[in-house]
Amino acid sequence: MTALETRSLHHCFGGIQGYYQHPSTVIGLPMRFSVYQPPQAKDHAVPVLFFLAGLTCTEETFMIKAGAQRYAAELGLMLVTMDTSPRQTGIPGETDAWDFGAGAGFYLDATQTPWSKHYRMESYITQELRNIIIEQFPADPNRIGIFGHSMGGHGALTLALRYPDLFHSVSAFAPICAPIRCPWGQKAFSHYLGENPQDWQPYDTTALLQAGHRIPNLLVDQGFNDQFLTTQLFPEALEQACDAAGQQLTLRYHQGYDHSYYFISTFVGEHLQYHRAQLG
Amino acid sequence: MTALETRSLHHCFGGIQGYYQHPSTVIGLPMRFSVYQPPQAKDHAVPVLFFLAGLTCTEETFMIKAGAQRYAAELGLMLVTMDTSPRQTGIPGETDAWDFGAGAGFYLDATQTPWSKHYRMESYITQELRNIIIEQFPADPNRIGIFGHSMGGHGALTLALRYPDLFHSVSAFAPICAPIRCPWGQKAFSHYLGENPQDWQPYDTTALLQAGHRIPNLLVDQGFNDQFLTTQLFPEALEQACDAAGQQLTLRYHQGYDHSYYFISTFVGEHLQYHRAQLG
Repeated sequence: MTALETRSLHHCFGGIQGYYQHPSTVIGLPMRFSVYQPPQAKDHAVPVLFFLAGLTCTEETFMIKAGAQRYAAELGLMLVTMDTSPRQTGIPGETDAWDFGAGAGFYLDATQTPWSKHYRMESYITQELRNIIIEQFPADPNRIGIFGHSMGGHGALTLALRYPDLFHSVSAFAPICAPIRCPWGQKAFSHYLGENPQDWQPYDTTALLQAGHRIPNLLVDQGFNDQFLTTQLFPEALEQACDAAGQQLTLRYHQGYDHSYYFISTFVGEHLQYHRAQLG
Repeated sequence: MTALETRSLHHCFGGIQGYYQHPSTVIGLPMRFSVYQPPQAKDHAVPVLFFLAGLTCTEETFMIKAGAQRYAAELGLMLVTMDTSPRQTGIPGETDAWDFGAGAGFYLDATQTPWSKHYRMESYITQELRNIIIEQFPADPNRIGIFGHSMGGHGALTLALRYPDLFHSVSAFAPICAPIRCPWGQKAFSHYLGENPQDWQPYDTTALLQAGHRIPNLLVDQGFNDQFLTTQLFPEALEQACDAAGQQLTLRYHQGYDHSYYFISTFVGEHLQYHRAQLG
């Protein structure tokens, strides 16, 4: 079993908020993640929700800002977050941009030098971190959901579509719906995956839907005052792709809400209830 | 009326989370504060809770970490937070220590050079900020409560005891109960108020109780795993002072909980309910 270093533990809503670090085989460097264990986890294995955060975030952001532990404690859900990229890889320019490199792993396995050596967040989450959670925490491997925000909404949707056996429920806040068509996605994919857009298809939700991938249900919340709505997120492309594919989608727009965690915190309770119902 | 610069506004639980800056007459420098207006404030004046944060915090900390907006929206309470000290006063060494100077104003009016020119948080909160809230937000001036954490718990208790006409309910998380007897308080008071401990009495909760000051009710939550419990906080001194003074006190200890916002977030809902009931 992977040796975990416990960085801190905090009682929270009758459960335990923990921060951990471990030497990652997949990434080839130390990685950090966080787990909220609800009170129910003292007695039995509980369903798990992986939350994938957005650009610039870390494993701490959602746990500090979303106010989700209250709902997780009520519903008996474990919450898992992870850093948004490898850190301190030594790649020149890694921290030069806020929307690429460190803090911007885009939840994929890079194929291009120099990124391919460490930037392997897809395999990290679906293999190594998932195994750690199942083996070392009271997690029910048959009831694992995934959700995320912005870049992490993209990550949740694409990983759920590509790994339906691993993730049994999915939702997103303000996801990047069509990264192959927006500046954030084009910048990241061209560096991580190369210049041929054909190679980007497995990491684009709309393309995955078009290629036949499906998920049972999908809940997406989107603020109308989101500063990235029209330039980066393209929920209308998600809606069209779901329509064309016959994919169920509940897409809710919210007047006045922006891209921040004030938006997420307002609706995170409903997302946890949705996953709890999906996971049974 | 004081001109407010709105730094940002965010929809949150049907209300508005706002961050503001203004030229402070009392402090003599720009000051920042934050207001959460619950949905009910669109229709009528609502009760208000001032939250005073602890060492190193700013006007953002509680609003980001405590998860209080959900309860405030349910209960129709306005939340107000402010920075924990003046900033960039130009006083040499102001930012050298995390427990004194910038981020550590201790909610008093300093009397000693060089601090007395700007470090006047007591007058700032009880006069200038209170007036801004009453005049420029839909706040009910007859229903204003105050609460806080650690240094801010000390601030809430001492301001409530000294200004019973201004604050109509009070509670605290892990407050510094007897600053004249703990290292944080002694360091701050000796610099802000001078070397004579007699001059510290008006800023010490236990001394104020002994001197006859009273509040209607008092709710205090304290974690048993708080890393500052035995060296800085002294809740047993508060209990003894309340006993001796005949002051009502509900002091709740919580097994396993520490000094962090994970502790605050767990019990903040009960504090808001307590204030709502007190304020009527």
